[in-house]
Amino acid sequence: MTPSVVWAIQQPEYDARVNRVREMMAARKLDGLVLFHPIRMAYVSGFFHLTTERPMAIVVPADGGLGALIPQLEQDHIGKSPSVTHVKVYPEYPSGGTKHPLWHLADLLGEMGLQGKQVGYDNDGYGDVSGYEGPLLSEVHDGPTLPARDIVDTLRLVKSEAELRFIRESAQWGNLAHRMMHDRLALGRNEVAISLEASTEASKIMLATLGPDYRPLTMVWGPPALAMFHAGANTALPHGLSNGGGLRRGDVLVTGAAADVGGYNSELERTMVLGEPTPEFERYFDLMLQLQQAGFDALKPGRSLAEAETEVSRAYAELGVTALQRHHTGHGIGLEGHEAPFIDKGDHRIIAEGMVFSVEPGLYVPGLAGFRHSDTVVITKDGAERITYYPRDLDSMIVRL
Amino acid sequence: MTPSVVWAIQQPEYDARVNRVREMMAARKLDGLVLFHPIRMAYVSGFFHLTTERPMAIVVPADGGLGALIPQLEQDHIGKSPSVTHVKVYPEYPSGGTKHPLWHLADLLGEMGLQGKQVGYDNDGYGDVSGYEGPLLSEVHDGPTLPARDIVDTLRLVKSEAELRFIRESAQWGNLAHRMMHDRLALGRNEVAISLEASTEASKIMLATLGPDYRPLTMVWGPPALAMFHAGANTALPHGLSNGGGLRRGDVLVTGAAADVGGYNSELERTMVLGEPTPEFERYFDLMLQLQQAGFDALKPGRSLAEAETEVSRAYAELGVTALQRHHTGHGIGLEGHEAPFIDKGDHRIIAEGMVFSVEPGLYVPGLAGFRHSDTVVITKDGAERITYYPRDLDSMIVRL
Repeated sequence: MTPSVVWAIQQPEYDARVNRVREMMAARKLDGLVLFHPIRMAYVSGFFHLTTERPMAIVVPADGGLGALIPQLEQDHIGKSPSVTHVKVYPEYPSGGTKHPLWHLADLLGEMGLQGKQVGYDNDGYGDVSGYEGPLLSEVHDGPTLPARDIVDTLRLVKSEAELRFIRESAQWGNLAHRMMHDRLALGRNEVAISLEASTEASKIMLATLGPDYRPLTMVWGPPALAMFHAGANTALPHGLSNGGGLRRGDVLVTGAAADVGGYNSELERTMVLGEPTPEFERYFDLMLQLQQAGFDALKPGRSLAEAETEVSRAYAELGVTALQRHHTGHGIGLEGHEAPFIDKGDHRIIAEGMVFSVEPGLYVPGLAGFRHSDTVVITKDGAERITYYPRDLDSMIVRL
Repeated sequence: MTPSVVWAIQQPEYDARVNRVREMMAARKLDGLVLFHPIRMAYVSGFFHLTTERPMAIVVPADGGLGALIPQLEQDHIGKSPSVTHVKVYPEYPSGGTKHPLWHLADLLGEMGLQGKQVGYDNDGYGDVSGYEGPLLSEVHDGPTLPARDIVDTLRLVKSEAELRFIRESAQWGNLAHRMMHDRLALGRNEVAISLEASTEASKIMLATLGPDYRPLTMVWGPPALAMFHAGANTALPHGLSNGGGLRRGDVLVTGAAADVGGYNSELERTMVLGEPTPEFERYFDLMLQLQQAGFDALKPGRSLAEAETEVSRAYAELGVTALQRHHTGHGIGLEGHEAPFIDKGDHRIIAEGMVFSVEPGLYVPGLAGFRHSDTVVITKDGAERITYYPRDLDSMIVRL
């Protein structure tokens, strides 16, 4: 009997993805596509792994099963991906036995009938990972090669029903982690300790709830449900690193929560304050809320992301806070916490149903604090549906001491 | 008053690193060096950050302060790196305001007097990160460009006194996290839950011990002291992902523990068993211990890494277990958990005092289990000094139920 809910994308969806990849390959007269990025590899094959200095790649041929370049130590692991039928195992990096691992990839391409054929790639060789060095794909393949990173990335822009289900589920567990963190906030406590306690508790409940079929696929080093925050002056830095000091009265917190469900992520961020806020804090908080609402309203299917961003910039200007803007409104979310497309004046792609974004226009007031809520939204025919549902109002964001 | 222990590399060491980079640049007639990899950026400047789709780079000129390409949202953050005196801020990715961020990098090179000059790079452009797309450095710089990744990476091969101090300190906190995990192993318990509890407890003690000057620099998403494990048949996969099921009698565990001190890592891994081991387990365990001892013995300064690996392979052959080998003996450790050089037949670099390695030859018995201890060693004039000190013997690795 098959369980009714399995927390991973199922094989028919992988097959459908590969078929769509092949349509785009055919339009460009590509006989093969080589993917080196771990997330693109996972997207087409279901093979999730940790990147190291040992190169790996997935090869999508025009027909038939996929190919995989794999170091010997992953040999049994790849066996779990039914899409992969041609496995080329090399002994080790850097030696590769008698030749560099990328020459084993060239052998694989040959064995898959791609010798002399035109092959696309996401990168012309394996990445700059953990001390890896090696030749380019274009140096080891004896046919023409050309860049085609966008083939898989275009498919990733619009999420399937299963992907949306996982992202919604992720939002629920992010919410729990955030609540558990919220409830632990207290004067003098260390921010890293609070984050770890809350993430651990929320993750244990998540694991117990989702059952033994669940396993983390992308957030494999830390807790599968995670909440953290930056406090005090650090919040004026949008991506501030953690500060080891304890919490103090009046600290402003910018939080973040996420969870991994089937490899998919969501994003929840809140601006909070320890103790009663100053009138100045209240004023910036209210402006930030108005900007975020402008962000939700701007995301209409059929218009471009650049148009949406221009509308949010207009709201900054109307509110008189353009000088306090430090970044665009948001980014795509899926298998990666940040991924294309971007709500940005330079992104001219059209907003479509099934896209997923963070909406997080911020205000950064030097010497005071950063003000940013981030919510995850799904684009529907009516616009942005917010799927992170943690309270947003000022009263809920005041930690009473 | 300066605190007596600060858990970060100090400015004079950064200055010394930059001076050594400049000597190598001069030998290659490079007027500048552009670094895009976050760890190389941090190594020369002390600027640690999370990579996103927004490109960043550090520019090392032949003399004077360093340059940095930074998105507006990191503008205040870079101010904390005294080495950086030329900061080029671009508004946002992808728009870059009026031009792609990499063209702002070209402007920075011009402002630093590098227009038309010969510039080296670690990568010819920013990486394949979170949906980033953009031109190559060689397309935006108007002078000659050439690959020079090895300049910084060569310096990283041998650790300084401060680096070794941090790696030794890391080994202590990894040891605590491992012990706390060890003490929580029990039948039916979920492996992720055990790992999170132990990592959280160890990290809280680490934070309380090291005090407010400590902050995690490279392990910023998870616990700063971390212990985890794979159980059962998953251990036959050297980099197995976690399995959501509970622990069962007879399960073999392959564990891992690490900690971030000043951005530096160590590695501790152990093979354990739940309940009394079978004679078959005991036999492979003993063989694995012999192989690891061969690994320690093989690391003598002055010989090549390939020679050391050949000696370990000889031990596999003498013990009759060559067929159960899946990977080489070990890898470098420092700012990255895996980094160059590698104890591998393809790595002909010479073992030198101050290098740091994992020593972890493994045996993988399909259908039974994987057998691998990993210890971190520092190369001294006498050979490998083991700095991870968790018990290695069979008796200590049996979890009594």
